[in-house]
Amino acid sequence: MNSVVNGKCSKGIVPIENSIEGPVGLTLDLLAHKIDLVIEKEIVIPISHNLLICKDIYGAEGIGDIIDVYSHSQALAQCQNYLENHNMKTHFTLSTAAAAESIKGQKGVAAIGTLKAAEIYGLKPIDKNIQDIKNNQTRFIILSKNLTKITGHDKTSLLFSLFDDNPGGLYEILGVFAKSNVNLTKIESRPSKEGLGKYIFFIDLEGHQDDEKIKNILNILKEKTSFLKILGSYPIANVNEI
Amino acid sequence: MNSVVNGKCSKGIVPIENSIEGPVGLTLDLLAHKIDLVIEKEIVIPISHNLLICKDIYGAEGIGDIIDVYSHSQALAQCQNYLENHNMKTHFTLSTAAAAESIKGQKGVAAIGTLKAAEIYGLKPIDKNIQDIKNNQTRFIILSKNLTKITGHDKTSLLFSLFDDNPGGLYEILGVFAKSNVNLTKIESRPSKEGLGKYIFFIDLEGHQDDEKIKNILNILKEKTSFLKILGSYPIANVNEI
Repeated sequence: MNSVVNGKCSKGIVPIENSIEGPVGLTLDLLAHKIDLVIEKEIVIPISHNLLICKDIYGAEGIGDIIDVYSHSQALAQCQNYLENHNMKTHFTLSTAAAAESIKGQKGVAAIGTLKAAEIYGLKPIDKNIQDIKNNQTRFIILSKNLTKITGHDKTSLLFSLFDDNPGGLYEILGVFAKSNVNLTKIESRPSKEGLGKYIFFIDLEGHQDDEKIKNILNILKEKTSFLKILGSYPIANVNEI
Repeated sequence: MNSVVNGKCSKGIVPIENSIEGPVGLTLDLLAHKIDLVIEKEIVIPISHNLLICKDIYGAEGIGDIIDVYSHSQALAQCQNYLENHNMKTHFTLSTAAAAESIKGQKGVAAIGTLKAAEIYGLKPIDKNIQDIKNNQTRFIILSKNLTKITGHDKTSLLFSLFDDNPGGLYEILGVFAKSNVNLTKIESRPSKEGLGKYIFFIDLEGHQDDEKIKNILNILKEKTSFLKILGSYPIANVNEI
């Protein structure tokens, strides 16, 4: 994100939510508090986790011989049942790629990672698709400084916080969307970092911020929120195409 | 949680949300999908992170000499600015206690943990309260099989999911609370694990499930949700007392 802000890169790609583990807190917090960039596009990628072991040990050991498993905390969380059922001990690494790299030449040890990582680091999958829930997708966003034009099949991402003294504030705001027949495709809350019970809400709605109907809604929202930030309007990803 | 379900323990205590990092996904997911226990009580504990080094090295090195820092991913996330400003390299451990234990006898290495951990593992704090945001609290819940009685100053926790074909469902449900003047102290969404855009909502409301007003609301909610689970009613924690 910093590289895009500084102009070192023209675009950045970051994960924003996963269908199992939920929102990527760090991405949402940076978009809310620190970074001013535009969401130019979204991409939804299916996630598949595999149990990888060293190529030179492959054939010599079975799944039952694996004692220690290395991976990123998210990947380990997504394979929790599998790991518990096989009595495997988990170890955190900074990324699934780092896990794949770290197990080189070791016995009784596996990494959870992609088949691509297996290829790069000379590993073999001893088991495939080991994630607890098969319907596992991650949504990524492409960030840049460019506003995207209306395509007619768009989504707008925004975030807001409510006035402190208005407990029914979220209800009022959802009412603005409901009365205009605007569909919300996402609603997430994140702590505002000002104390328990104080939230920033992230909403994705169908439509482009340059549509007349959405423009009117955004004007109403400005009045009803203590903080409002439009993250961008962009074409809705066609998940089936990927 | 399993030990309470099996009767090995009479009560269990787990973190449910942090004022900075947000909901504890694992706790919410277990309460929603796997575990049938009652929330008997809530406790709010302020969190303070400290940079700990070995006692025998203390005095010989300053903060600038620390290169590698070990801790749980949540603690590292909560001290992100501090770690970046000091160019420290982060390493994940399973807990802050495990981090404190792991750095024994090492130079140029620190753990992030509590002052209690420093005491237990023979470490010294070289810097205190290093978390990025000072207002850092974690809310814990006590789980058991016992329903708690009305005290007159209670909170009820529940979760629900909406019918698939009803995009305005959340608005309708918030309307039920708003019209009865029931305050919501928490609203969180978690992925339902059935695909992107499908959520389970966690709500805390003021009142006890045995109050007539709350009983009526819960009856209306049964009709308007595809899944409803009452997690318990319990006294509201007095944060200032802790």
